[in-house]
Amino acid sequence: MNLKINSNTLPLGFKASGMRAHIKKNGKPDMALFYSQTSCVSAGFFTVNKVKAAPVMVCLKHARHKTQRAIIINSGNANAMTGRQGEKDAFEMARLVARGLVVPLEDVFVSSTGVIGRPLPMEEIRKAIPSLIASLSEGGFSDAASAILTTDTFAKKVTVDFKIGPKSVTITGLAKGAGMIAPQVKSATMLAYIFTDAHVSKVLLNKAARQAVELSFNAITIDGCMSTNDSVIFMANGLAGHPVIASGTKEEKLFTEVLARVCLELAKMIIADAEGATKFIEINVRGVKSFAQAKRFAFAVANSMLFKCAMFGENPNWGRIASALGSVPLKLCWEKMDIFLNRKPVFKNGRPVVLKDKKLLKDKNVFVDIDLKDGAQQACVLTCDLSYDYVKINAEYN
Amino acid sequence: MNLKINSNTLPLGFKASGMRAHIKKNGKPDMALFYSQTSCVSAGFFTVNKVKAAPVMVCLKHARHKTQRAIIINSGNANAMTGRQGEKDAFEMARLVARGLVVPLEDVFVSSTGVIGRPLPMEEIRKAIPSLIASLSEGGFSDAASAILTTDTFAKKVTVDFKIGPKSVTITGLAKGAGMIAPQVKSATMLAYIFTDAHVSKVLLNKAARQAVELSFNAITIDGCMSTNDSVIFMANGLAGHPVIASGTKEEKLFTEVLARVCLELAKMIIADAEGATKFIEINVRGVKSFAQAKRFAFAVANSMLFKCAMFGENPNWGRIASALGSVPLKLCWEKMDIFLNRKPVFKNGRPVVLKDKKLLKDKNVFVDIDLKDGAQQACVLTCDLSYDYVKINAEYN
Repeated sequence: MNLKINSNTLPLGFKASGMRAHIKKNGKPDMALFYSQTSCVSAGFFTVNKVKAAPVMVCLKHARHKTQRAIIINSGNANAMTGRQGEKDAFEMARLVARGLVVPLEDVFVSSTGVIGRPLPMEEIRKAIPSLIASLSEGGFSDAASAILTTDTFAKKVTVDFKIGPKSVTITGLAKGAGMIAPQVKSATMLAYIFTDAHVSKVLLNKAARQAVELSFNAITIDGCMSTNDSVIFMANGLAGHPVIASGTKEEKLFTEVLARVCLELAKMIIADAEGATKFIEINVRGVKSFAQAKRFAFAVANSMLFKCAMFGENPNWGRIASALGSVPLKLCWEKMDIFLNRKPVFKNGRPVVLKDKKLLKDKNVFVDIDLKDGAQQACVLTCDLSYDYVKINAEYN
Repeated sequence: MNLKINSNTLPLGFKASGMRAHIKKNGKPDMALFYSQTSCVSAGFFTVNKVKAAPVMVCLKHARHKTQRAIIINSGNANAMTGRQGEKDAFEMARLVARGLVVPLEDVFVSSTGVIGRPLPMEEIRKAIPSLIASLSEGGFSDAASAILTTDTFAKKVTVDFKIGPKSVTITGLAKGAGMIAPQVKSATMLAYIFTDAHVSKVLLNKAARQAVELSFNAITIDGCMSTNDSVIFMANGLAGHPVIASGTKEEKLFTEVLARVCLELAKMIIADAEGATKFIEINVRGVKSFAQAKRFAFAVANSMLFKCAMFGENPNWGRIASALGSVPLKLCWEKMDIFLNRKPVFKNGRPVVLKDKKLLKDKNVFVDIDLKDGAQQACVLTCDLSYDYVKINAEYN
């Protein structure tokens, strides 16, 4: 497996474009288009928030269609809580792309990200779409990846090449994150798109994608806030030329592994670029009865404001980790548990360990390892600290 | 009903004392004792965190006893996660007080608040308890109220006088709050003590107290973090001299109302003194099928970090209110809902309202009114904003 971060390679048959459509007032790029020259199978995971943005409604409808060809995306405006007009606008975005590319309407996905509750500037969007179509190219990935960002400070791009038999297969993923990144989502947590030329069935793609999402985008939290627009879309066009990957084979295993790796790398980049974050925190909870329970304990710590502030202050206050674990309505034998900070024990077999290292949390990376000694399962969750800058960014936004 | 904030009046027969025992390194008062000259009935509500501090374990045991006489409290050390030694220490605190006052061990409650995971400095505590007993007086309430504080900036005290027949009845409450104040607690959320000379049965006191707690301490959140030490204790000694309050009478109704009012005032003071807070926020959710559901929606907004940051920035970003409501796994017809900020509509019948008033959130007090138009029940939750100072206080603490 050959993994490249920040590469601009798209899989065979995919093209992209990005541009300034003046939706954002700061003049940054704000529209992107992705396109496959041949039909794709797809898998889509969308926010479980009851307040779903109009583009998510379009995607949920179009995801039922057998094939897909394109994704049109705007940043700077979420097109959420914009009523009937918002839905009309989202469908119009899909329709303009479908007409321009001469593909069925249902072949087009739509995503939006930005401020909630403002009508889309459709005049700008109508003008932009023909330009986006005209400028589609293999090299347009970089422009497209920049155009989906909001408060992100860098584009998140991952490409992996691997072999299925003699054939070279590529998976390329991109994402945006930064804020409103949450744990309660059962399906997805931000905007992420993963394209591949692998030849797979819709069923197999869905299975592999679900597993990848569970271990990546659904295992991160920045602020515990669930967005109205979260979408993760996978598209596979089969152009790599190998026989279709069959269920239960080593090829399926390999494909699933690579897909999961691509998603995990993107998820890590989202946390590394979290709003105001100064720490990248990995929380491992082991010794639990099930993966789901382990994840619940890990998220309770990851979403604790007191824990996050302690990490920002490089303060090894494990009491806050323990009280967060104790707030989960599940059995907890804290009298025998262990807590490690950066691999050093701070609480062992239910007893505090005297800490001598005052600089234990100096590094940007922090590892929190918790052993509840009550089962054989484990889970890992990624998060960040809560800094002055998170407050600043979110006090001032919009 | 005659309500006095910050009064130092205790009900008939109650005495208190407070002092510096040098548990806190900053030399501030850190031990308090409350005592009733005659036996009390009591009601106690304690944290539902699985990690319960040693004093909470003592209280849970002693609460089963028929009568109570005293509460011994220390601040500066939570005596939580301190193992068997911690439990021994908590029981020793109760025993020293019981011996000194010549009352049964089970008549004494114990509370601790402060840092988790450090052994109690028992030598200081053993020295302090005889002094606390010796200095008990009707006028000692002020000293006692100061000695239970941690990061609080002021003592929280409320006294109400009212009549039952010709007899004057007094209820006095005090509390500490500031941080680690949470919604998930089913029973209590910080340290609060309510004393009365009313003549009531244990059953009636429990019923009235439960109702009061639900509408006050269980309806506030500062940071969504659940403590290991939360305790609310009610004690009634009956010295007011009226006949015992019977169930179903107007006297019961009055007593319940006054008790609820005392608790609500204390809860409001906790929010007003929340760590780093610049806003006092009241969230009312109406048009919901049940009180419990309405409370769940209100807490989802109150605990949203993005909402809290917006309030700090005086930013009327109602999209964050809507997405927090949508994250609750309950039915939500957002297409017809209303959201008001400081009584002005910002989202009406499912549509954004153009906001002209740029200074809408200038005041310290913010009212968020939400009508979900899907039922006849409502709930109110109190919270505060998330400021730089909250981060500062909790990054640096301990």
